[in-house]
Amino acid sequence: MTLAEIAKRLECEVHGDGACLISGVATLQNAESGQLSFLANRRYRRYLESTRASAVILNPDDLEACPVNALVASNPYLAYARAAALLNPPAPVPQGCHPSAVIESGCNIDPGAAVGAKCYIGADVVIAAAAVIGPGCVIGRNASIGAATRLVANVSVGEGVSIGSRVLVQPGAVIGSDGLGYAQDKGAWVKVLQLGGVVIGDDVEIGANTTIDRGALEDTIIEEGVILDNQIQIAHNVRIGARTAIAGATAIAGSTSIGKRCQIGGAVGIVGHLEIADDVYITAMSLVTGNIRRPGLYSSGTPLADNKKWRRNAARFGQLDEMARRLRALEKKLED
Amino acid sequence: MTLAEIAKRLECEVHGDGACLISGVATLQNAESGQLSFLANRRYRRYLESTRASAVILNPDDLEACPVNALVASNPYLAYARAAALLNPPAPVPQGCHPSAVIESGCNIDPGAAVGAKCYIGADVVIAAAAVIGPGCVIGRNASIGAATRLVANVSVGEGVSIGSRVLVQPGAVIGSDGLGYAQDKGAWVKVLQLGGVVIGDDVEIGANTTIDRGALEDTIIEEGVILDNQIQIAHNVRIGARTAIAGATAIAGSTSIGKRCQIGGAVGIVGHLEIADDVYITAMSLVTGNIRRPGLYSSGTPLADNKKWRRNAARFGQLDEMARRLRALEKKLED
Amino acid sequence: MTLAEIAKRLECEVHGDGACLISGVATLQNAESGQLSFLANRRYRRYLESTRASAVILNPDDLEACPVNALVASNPYLAYARAAALLNPPAPVPQGCHPSAVIESGCNIDPGAAVGAKCYIGADVVIAAAAVIGPGCVIGRNASIGAATRLVANVSVGEGVSIGSRVLVQPGAVIGSDGLGYAQDKGAWVKVLQLGGVVIGDDVEIGANTTIDRGALEDTIIEEGVILDNQIQIAHNVRIGARTAIAGATAIAGSTSIGKRCQIGGAVGIVGHLEIADDVYITAMSLVTGNIRRPGLYSSGTPLADNKKWRRNAARFGQLDEMARRLRALEKKLED
Repeated sequence: MTLAEIAKRLECEVHGDGACLISGVATLQNAESGQLSFLANRRYRRYLESTRASAVILNPDDLEACPVNALVASNPYLAYARAAALLNPPAPVPQGCHPSAVIESGCNIDPGAAVGAKCYIGADVVIAAAAVIGPGCVIGRNASIGAATRLVANVSVGEGVSIGSRVLVQPGAVIGSDGLGYAQDKGAWVKVLQLGGVVIGDDVEIGANTTIDRGALEDTIIEEGVILDNQIQIAHNVRIGARTAIAGATAIAGSTSIGKRCQIGGAVGIVGHLEIADDVYITAMSLVTGNIRRPGLYSSGTPLADNKKWRRNAARFGQLDEMARRLRALEKKLED
Repeated sequence: MTLAEIAKRLECEVHGDGACLISGVATLQNAESGQLSFLANRRYRRYLESTRASAVILNPDDLEACPVNALVASNPYLAYARAAALLNPPAPVPQGCHPSAVIESGCNIDPGAAVGAKCYIGADVVIAAAAVIGPGCVIGRNASIGAATRLVANVSVGEGVSIGSRVLVQPGAVIGSDGLGYAQDKGAWVKVLQLGGVVIGDDVEIGANTTIDRGALEDTIIEEGVILDNQIQIAHNVRIGARTAIAGATAIAGSTSIGKRCQIGGAVGIVGHLEIADDVYITAMSLVTGNIRRPGLYSSGTPLADNKKWRRNAARFGQLDEMARRLRALEKKLED
Repeated sequence: MTLAEIAKRLECEVHGDGACLISGVATLQNAESGQLSFLANRRYRRYLESTRASAVILNPDDLEACPVNALVASNPYLAYARAAALLNPPAPVPQGCHPSAVIESGCNIDPGAAVGAKCYIGADVVIAAAAVIGPGCVIGRNASIGAATRLVANVSVGEGVSIGSRVLVQPGAVIGSDGLGYAQDKGAWVKVLQLGGVVIGDDVEIGANTTIDRGALEDTIIEEGVILDNQIQIAHNVRIGARTAIAGATAIAGSTSIGKRCQIGGAVGIVGHLEIADDVYITAMSLVTGNIRRPGLYSSGTPLADNKKWRRNAARFGQLDEMARRLRALEKKLED
């Protein structure tokens, strides 16, 4: 592809030789001739000057410093995402069911879908066109998988789970496990049947080994365009609003509802039965124990320190209330 | 089933029409005619007045406000758990080994047990009556699975692991992986063989993608009636006392012993070689670094705040010890 | 094996009867006659006096208190690791491909390697001598697995991933999942293709259900001798230096580079794009948000406390900056 063709598809402007041939993408540091790179993060600007890329996607401010051909874009990272997709078209989707797959009766599998080796597909499952069920996946009965959705490998989908179109599920994810619902009876736990389902909207990504529990009575809901990283735990009856992004190892307890377009940092904990507004951002490893009613950036925790210093300060944390009272007493004394 | 029949089985009192037919359970908000609902959490009382359920399980205090038939119970959530089980009897347990399962020699599989598609059962494994090994599970040699235990799908059980009766293991769980035991030899790590096993008691639930390591020399032990949520990490030689409940994403380091009837919030961290008493409750995302000798409720961490405010306060955390000293100095000055 | 033979192999000194026969290893508390035990942790010294072991590995200081035969070692835990390996030689490695495994075209599988039941091996995969691919593993095309490496069970390896020699991968681990790379386009997320790979060095251990993402353009790199516990999340383009050890449930965000010989406690969070020096130790559940340039021990967080006390102190955390200002004001007042 020529640089000019790429520019046209990306709707951005070429500076330099539009006839230059581009065969792939690479980082500024490691690009070779014939490769397209990008500059989207200040941190990497120092590599621009010496890049051997044939062209660089960048924003107008960096154009002057660019020693090679350039594609100017207002959002270089987005333009790069599109260029990478253009230059790496997806492999043709396989079709049909591998002979080693076990498929129970009553399934409706589109002839344009693929079911990989070693899969188990329960009764009455529906799999739409161009969906790809990778090797080793288990899909419980009555589940439905939307068009062009891909379960990469070893994914477990529970009974009756509904997954939308163009969803990408990374290996080891579990969708539709039972939530931890138990009632107490004189110290023993009595299981509360988990009778709800899981509904995953269109254009969702679910990370490796992420778990999403089915609802207790109603459904756990992941709205369209949500992106979930690896090792996330989503408990029963959680709802996650459209286009919210959640980083790895975050855990969300039961019945909490998270708004649209939120960005939740890694290893965040969110307790149950909360309401979190749209457009809320939460920094890594924060703990959320109350409703968040307004958009904004939220945090908890204490800063990292040398252990010796940290120990001294952490010990004082247990005296904070007393210190506050003593401070108030001094102020009073001096007022008198 | 009539409401009166349900009441009899639950040993609770009917108010209203005992002949009313009940076909299922639903939430107060979404129940339709013919459905039974429940009120167990103050949060949902506002839905009682307008419910379309045919009957509601509730405690005596809420009876007056109930616009429909009622079942009065001292523990409505427990009564609901039982009613849900009555109205949703388990599907008949499948029996026999799926032809695609691979079963090594020397196994003792009860004819009333089921081994699903794509399972691998190592040599000399024992599987008791009415146990169900779901699709894609791997069970290492010499392991034993108790009666009526169910591994849902894609569960990995290591060599020699012993699982009790009526245990429920959600998809992706790993029981009997090696603990991280290594000795140092001039900067390199030398593996310490993990020769112990895992013993899971009766009536345990193990969540999706939860991991339980085998012991180094003796066994890792999960006593009867323990309930473990998803994504929990339990290291080698941990012991968890009977009927303790642990929420998702909690991690427990090696050789720690946790008492009976504890309730441990989500994403809690517990370091190794600790003793935690019976009846200890720990709030979400706390870090436990010392023994806990008395029952009670324990916590650590700092509250969530707007990021700007949080930054200011968090920066002061690093000055806490100095602040305490300055406060003391002021007090001394004023005493003089 | 006689105690003298073991001592010779371990290069340590026998005290007592070198002809004594040893058949296995056990803890001080539970060892029986014929078993070898060890004392490496002060915590267990109280069991030395009454041990029924035939011999104990210990350091010179504990020799006098030892009531039975002894092997004296400067690092008893290391000596024990070696003795346990001597006394528990590995089972002979299976060889060949199980007939239920599905192996695509173009693979190069050493005749001395084993591919277990229910595996799926994509096209053009290379598996070296004495490697063991356990049951239920999925290996994507073009991946390579080094000599004597073992994937225990249900492991997922992505396309093009390279794993070194003598690597041990516990069940449920995922190596080579997509990183969470997305660009924003007017509120919607546009996937950034994840085109890099994962390179795992020799002598690495990867824990159960741990996830390691492929790089976005370049590779995610785990250097030789790294040991990773269970449930760890390693994002795209992370690099982990040789012989670093990471405890369970730790999460490391994208493009962070960690030095050699670090020891990172459990449930630690490390944000993206950081540089962490060699020989850095981090205590459990700390959050790292900035570069760490010097070796040392680092921590964050607050100590566990009784919930009532904790609530009082935690509430004051939100007033810390104000308290610091009021303290300063008092000091000024008294200076005047």
